[in-house]
Amino acid sequence: MNDSWTKHRDEKKLKISKLSHLVDDKIIPTDRIVEALETLISPYDKVVLEGDNQKQASFLSKALDRVDPDKINNLNMIISSISMPEHLNIFDKGIARKLDFSYAGSQSLRTAQMIEDNRMVVGSINTYLELYARLFVDLIPNVVLVAADKADKDGNLYTGANTEETPTIVEAAAFHDGIVIVQVNEIVDTLPRVDIPGSWVDFVVKADKPYQIEPLFTRDPRNIKEIHILMAMMVIKGIYARHNVTSLNHGIGFNTAAIELLLPTYGESLGLKGKICRNWALNPHPTLIPAIESGWVESVHCFGGELGMEKYIAARPDVFFTGPDGSLRSNRAYCQVAGQYAVDLFIGSTLQMDPLANSSTVTSGRLAGFGGAPNMGSDPHGRRHSSKAWLDMASGDSDIIRGKKLVVQMVETFKSGNDPVFVESLDAINVGKNANLASTPVMIYGDDVTHVVTEEGIAYLYKAQNIDERRDALAAIAGVTPIGLSISKDKVKKLRNKGVVSLPCDLGIKHTEAKRSLLAAKNIEDLVSWSDGLYEPPAKFKNW
Amino acid sequence: MNDSWTKHRDEKKLKISKLSHLVDDKIIPTDRIVEALETLISPYDKVVLEGDNQKQASFLSKALDRVDPDKINNLNMIISSISMPEHLNIFDKGIARKLDFSYAGSQSLRTAQMIEDNRMVVGSINTYLELYARLFVDLIPNVVLVAADKADKDGNLYTGANTEETPTIVEAAAFHDGIVIVQVNEIVDTLPRVDIPGSWVDFVVKADKPYQIEPLFTRDPRNIKEIHILMAMMVIKGIYARHNVTSLNHGIGFNTAAIELLLPTYGESLGLKGKICRNWALNPHPTLIPAIESGWVESVHCFGGELGMEKYIAARPDVFFTGPDGSLRSNRAYCQVAGQYAVDLFIGSTLQMDPLANSSTVTSGRLAGFGGAPNMGSDPHGRRHSSKAWLDMASGDSDIIRGKKLVVQMVETFKSGNDPVFVESLDAINVGKNANLASTPVMIYGDDVTHVVTEEGIAYLYKAQNIDERRDALAAIAGVTPIGLSISKDKVKKLRNKGVVSLPCDLGIKHTEAKRSLLAAKNIEDLVSWSDGLYEPPAKFKNW
Repeated sequence: MNDSWTKHRDEKKLKISKLSHLVDDKIIPTDRIVEALETLISPYDKVVLEGDNQKQASFLSKALDRVDPDKINNLNMIISSISMPEHLNIFDKGIARKLDFSYAGSQSLRTAQMIEDNRMVVGSINTYLELYARLFVDLIPNVVLVAADKADKDGNLYTGANTEETPTIVEAAAFHDGIVIVQVNEIVDTLPRVDIPGSWVDFVVKADKPYQIEPLFTRDPRNIKEIHILMAMMVIKGIYARHNVTSLNHGIGFNTAAIELLLPTYGESLGLKGKICRNWALNPHPTLIPAIESGWVESVHCFGGELGMEKYIAARPDVFFTGPDGSLRSNRAYCQVAGQYAVDLFIGSTLQMDPLANSSTVTSGRLAGFGGAPNMGSDPHGRRHSSKAWLDMASGDSDIIRGKKLVVQMVETFKSGNDPVFVESLDAINVGKNANLASTPVMIYGDDVTHVVTEEGIAYLYKAQNIDERRDALAAIAGVTPIGLSISKDKVKKLRNKGVVSLPCDLGIKHTEAKRSLLAAKNIEDLVSWSDGLYEPPAKFKNW
Repeated sequence: MNDSWTKHRDEKKLKISKLSHLVDDKIIPTDRIVEALETLISPYDKVVLEGDNQKQASFLSKALDRVDPDKINNLNMIISSISMPEHLNIFDKGIARKLDFSYAGSQSLRTAQMIEDNRMVVGSINTYLELYARLFVDLIPNVVLVAADKADKDGNLYTGANTEETPTIVEAAAFHDGIVIVQVNEIVDTLPRVDIPGSWVDFVVKADKPYQIEPLFTRDPRNIKEIHILMAMMVIKGIYARHNVTSLNHGIGFNTAAIELLLPTYGESLGLKGKICRNWALNPHPTLIPAIESGWVESVHCFGGELGMEKYIAARPDVFFTGPDGSLRSNRAYCQVAGQYAVDLFIGSTLQMDPLANSSTVTSGRLAGFGGAPNMGSDPHGRRHSSKAWLDMASGDSDIIRGKKLVVQMVETFKSGNDPVFVESLDAINVGKNANLASTPVMIYGDDVTHVVTEEGIAYLYKAQNIDERRDALAAIAGVTPIGLSISKDKVKKLRNKGVVSLPCDLGIKHTEAKRSLLAAKNIEDLVSWSDGLYEPPAKFKNW
């Protein structure tokens, strides 16, 4: 019935032949990249632009921003993390029209504004792993623009420590007659190792400067406050130790950095070494160095690398995944799968939480997306292996024994600016309506949340017998927010007696103990020292 | 604190150096493989043996069965699919002790018996994707034994159509100083394409014969009965068309084969072409050929290949994922992710279902495991993109709009042998207790199931207002099983009026229409003919 079964392949062949005059083997000259993109991309194409959390295909992104909108327009862009102004400029110019993404971070205000002004149509917001999944189903790309460290003349790629999402994106295009264009920092004769085979790559271009990369997961211990330390103590004693949490993921932030820095001090004093926090799915947080050096950590699998951690990681191959060349092998897709299915606990933070523990970082005027949180902060119903922690969450109302992932939210009751985190209704509901999203942009659904921790205490939501008790448990730790003030002291006392809520004193934790002196490292310099000089912090973190 | 951070690396180096006398570059002579394994593996090692659904590392499996148990013993084997007797022999001999797996299929009886006799300890049962995830967290392998089609002298691998789980297993070992040993059918100078880079591979051995592979996903249309056709009609009209299901996964079986073969006939007559069943996560089922040829299918991403489909797939690159060499690129890990996050619907079958729609294929004396069903047959709470089908499952009791995956179970009310499928309590509960499993081996949890289809009708479980109505809806389609007989005609009528249950007549389907003449292909010969001779069925399916 079909007139042709090779339309993609024929079109690809034709486009590549049109480029033969300026390409040497697979190499596009740096100064001809705009012309090349204008030849290789067609209007309405699905184009993946690699925008990881950290590594950016910055050269290709800027080149795409320079194509002629009369030639290339109405693209459906697929960008996991909107991090650069150029990612949005192309919508202003009409080069792109539709956007499928995961996280907008620093560009969230502008993204929301562009949708309101109808300069951009949101195809969908996705968690990272979901976006990768769709590259093989309903978002199969025509062209992918990615970044690697080095290529050889056959197009073999070395991504080094920052492999991130590159292999996944490339696979989706390379095996469906999509066009794979890679910017590299260097073209060399021999690669330290091959991360992506040359037979998957169509074109390589040497970028005018190395790809942009951000040290997103570095937190200076100097900025950890006593309130973070208090909450971290509660988490270690009231959650990790209580449930024997051995495998876990930590999000980004000062809360979790505090936990990492308390393991070798407070954790050690509780005799927990070897009993908790052994196997991690985690970016290589510098704040984890003291715990690693103290022998707490068996393994860390990473989504991406972290600037400055290269030498330290290379010297700790028993802990990190590294290649034969010694450098880190990260893999964003596999680490998301690990964070979903293999670890017992996810702990993260949020900007708003409603009385049923639904939470979102989408607040008025900001369409931030969620990155990996929806994936890792949910109970995977496909999980079938057991662990002590997982079984601890089992509800006992059936012959069928079934555990649950620990999904912990750790928040202060007020955001800076005195906005309460606990609200009657999420801003996300209206933001979703205004942006014409078909579903509400919730980050983590309340029914998946097992614990909420604030500076007031821990709500063990998995123990709540019904919806009313869940609401009460949340209110009990919501401090002086309107929701916190709505519950009586008597009710709180009952919840404490039932073990549904624990205040610091119930856990044997004194506020006066929560001091910065407990931190295994008090600043970046201390981290460097713990690492024996192997950790080399980026300049902006050096202030000694 | 640690005396060494390179224990894995040092041990690997030492073992490899001990093998230098018999290895030429990376090539182990075929007849020295047992000696090599005895050098490279240590007691208590975590060893992954590639046992896909289809492709088996059969040569390495047999070699492992021949090592000296005094030298190599107590291994923790990680095998996704227990398919060969040798997979279990090694437990009888004490070479292996502990097993982490996903699916036991043909070896399920013997597996259950060996556990009972304490000749094997089950570490865990996992869904495929979960098992892969754990290779990066708490089951990081010391040695992996995998299979590829061809290698070159540098260890670059060509896996061709049957890539399956090989790259994922190899990545976990190669980047954590594990040892990667690959059996290949051929060692050649130049590969058609590179599926796995040589720098990830330590040793290659040419097998004495090509790896074992089974055409597991071929169903002869000759064996499709009218009851399958009736149920398939109900699914097409009452589920796929009603909810606009465009992306989906089909399990293995005559039920789903019937659906595939009705699309170009019954589906066409309903005007559904282009409206449903466009994007698939699916093994290359031969029974999908007529739908593809009739223009129904936009894309198929595959877990693995299927014997006989090679030339057909190579000629249809617009539909299938293929490499520059023309042959299929399958990827079990990515296709599981696609089947979880990117498709709207999973449809499968089961051996037992309880009144709350919990189901299991684990029945007395058989510990079969579940393969990919728990992963794909569950609602991924991390999903954030919308579609018509997904939104149709939304429950309307909140300001938060949230859809749900369609999880459909399609069963006849009685198994062969007159055992009812609908039971008061799953055998899996006792099997789990007897095998000392910490959790009950349920395949799909009832709270994820949105539809159940039998020859009697469809239960739209997602519409049920409460647990009691769910039970009643199931009973209404449970035929003359004890559970089916427990519900009154009056109640069934009420459920039909509410649209919670539909009988064939409610859907406008007559039993008399459900004829084999509706099948687009009535036998394997017809499939060959639809494919223009490109499909080359394995000998056992040729009977003309």
